[in-house]
Amino acid sequence: MKVVQNITELRALVAEQKKHCSSIALVPTMGNLHEGHLSLIKKAKEDKNFVVTSIFVNPTQFGPNEDFNSYPRTLDADAEKITPYCDVIFAPTVQEMYPSGTGMIVTEMEKSKRLCGSFRAGHFDGVLTVVLKLLNICEPNSVYFGLKDYQQFVLVSDMIAKLNLDIKMVGCPLLREKDGLAMSSRNSYMDVAQRNRALALVGSLRKVKELFDGGITDVVHLKAQALQVLLPKVSPQYFEIVDPKSLEDVSVASKGCVVAVAAYCDKVRLIDNIIL
Amino acid sequence: MKVVQNITELRALVAEQKKHCSSIALVPTMGNLHEGHLSLIKKAKEDKNFVVTSIFVNPTQFGPNEDFNSYPRTLDADAEKITPYCDVIFAPTVQEMYPSGTGMIVTEMEKSKRLCGSFRAGHFDGVLTVVLKLLNICEPNSVYFGLKDYQQFVLVSDMIAKLNLDIKMVGCPLLREKDGLAMSSRNSYMDVAQRNRALALVGSLRKVKELFDGGITDVVHLKAQALQVLLPKVSPQYFEIVDPKSLEDVSVASKGCVVAVAAYCDKVRLIDNIIL
Repeated sequence: MKVVQNITELRALVAEQKKHCSSIALVPTMGNLHEGHLSLIKKAKEDKNFVVTSIFVNPTQFGPNEDFNSYPRTLDADAEKITPYCDVIFAPTVQEMYPSGTGMIVTEMEKSKRLCGSFRAGHFDGVLTVVLKLLNICEPNSVYFGLKDYQQFVLVSDMIAKLNLDIKMVGCPLLREKDGLAMSSRNSYMDVAQRNRALALVGSLRKVKELFDGGITDVVHLKAQALQVLLPKVSPQYFEIVDPKSLEDVSVASKGCVVAVAAYCDKVRLIDNIIL
Repeated sequence: MKVVQNITELRALVAEQKKHCSSIALVPTMGNLHEGHLSLIKKAKEDKNFVVTSIFVNPTQFGPNEDFNSYPRTLDADAEKITPYCDVIFAPTVQEMYPSGTGMIVTEMEKSKRLCGSFRAGHFDGVLTVVLKLLNICEPNSVYFGLKDYQQFVLVSDMIAKLNLDIKMVGCPLLREKDGLAMSSRNSYMDVAQRNRALALVGSLRKVKELFDGGITDVVHLKAQALQVLLPKVSPQYFEIVDPKSLEDVSVASKGCVVAVAAYCDKVRLIDNIIL
């Protein structure tokens, strides 16, 4: 496995593979790879691709008071974990990605304003723009994203369709720790006590799922029950039941709806979701 | 030469050519082709490309009070003119380009707000987005634009660089009618008397060039002289002398600066420019 920092060098490697008719897969990440990321990379390899994993902590998707500086950067450990399944790590510097600053932005005005977007101004502009740049640099046949960042998955899918990118979007299931906590690089910020409280997120989702499976579909009622699980433990930002495509709130839950939650456990912001 | 309305069909034609190692050139136009467009298409063919000319009157780059509905649509005549130099015309419908509306937009916040951008809100968002879509559909090696729309040329060049598109941008000189009027599809809106008054645009530019060649570089003075040529004949929207890359106003003109004018001749909006 090669580790490449330079766009020109990555392009040459990909072009060489395309000559041999390889199918190229890109797995965009911010590094600090856990089993969730690994499941994407393994799936991309199982699907018989030449696998490029990008590792780039993208400054433009962090707000001014967010954790860009403290976000864990663990390139050597990441490389070791994924060597068996990945062909190239693309780990550019900020200078390589934004040599003349930002200034050309992909933006979406509806879905990106809901859920996380209503609390993280500009976040999805940053995500969409950097993903488009990575897609243009790597020119893959397919791109792999986890469903943990469900809103991101929907927005990148929409971008691929609406900007006519000839790339297949592959969504992979959210993975959980044994105790149920959704895997996240940000879990490492928490101590044992915080982590126990953080289980309220998955607890609230499972509570709603259980009630829904028992026939309760009124969203006001479901949300009230969820908040009873959340409020003693964490500070919720939102708890919503939404249409899986439009991300609009529904008032009656139905099969396929996405139940999504974001909450602070002290200073650590966590998200989680389940599909009904 | 083929005329194709369908994205899938165009992609198949391009893919077939790429198998034979052809270099693909895209010439994006809104149709009603004149000698200016023709010079782009001829240049693309001289450069030994498989030439795709797109003809699409893009609704998203017109303001609510602009001439989208009346913009001349002359596909048959266009096809006849370019047959010797063009391999494929891509003439999609609005439905083909925007099957689910717009909603995913490329935007730029500085250069796009200057010159024409300060009078045509959202115009360059529309231009950049549709050009990106066309580039993604056609996946050309090079793309050809005229320098008449100088600001458009700069913004598309920036988009290609900043979004890491692996495409060569080729700029071709503005062409003029025998009397000096810059070629434009909108010239057909004017009668003989209006057309004579419209010559004030090129007259003002040539006046400034002449003064600059004579050693005058003070922009306040140059603009005052230009307005004396313009004001009796047309209603100027702007007359600016700008840096060719940043498009910022300069106070002292120098070689390479762009002199750009936009003016209404009655209801017809015209633009023109020269490079000092």
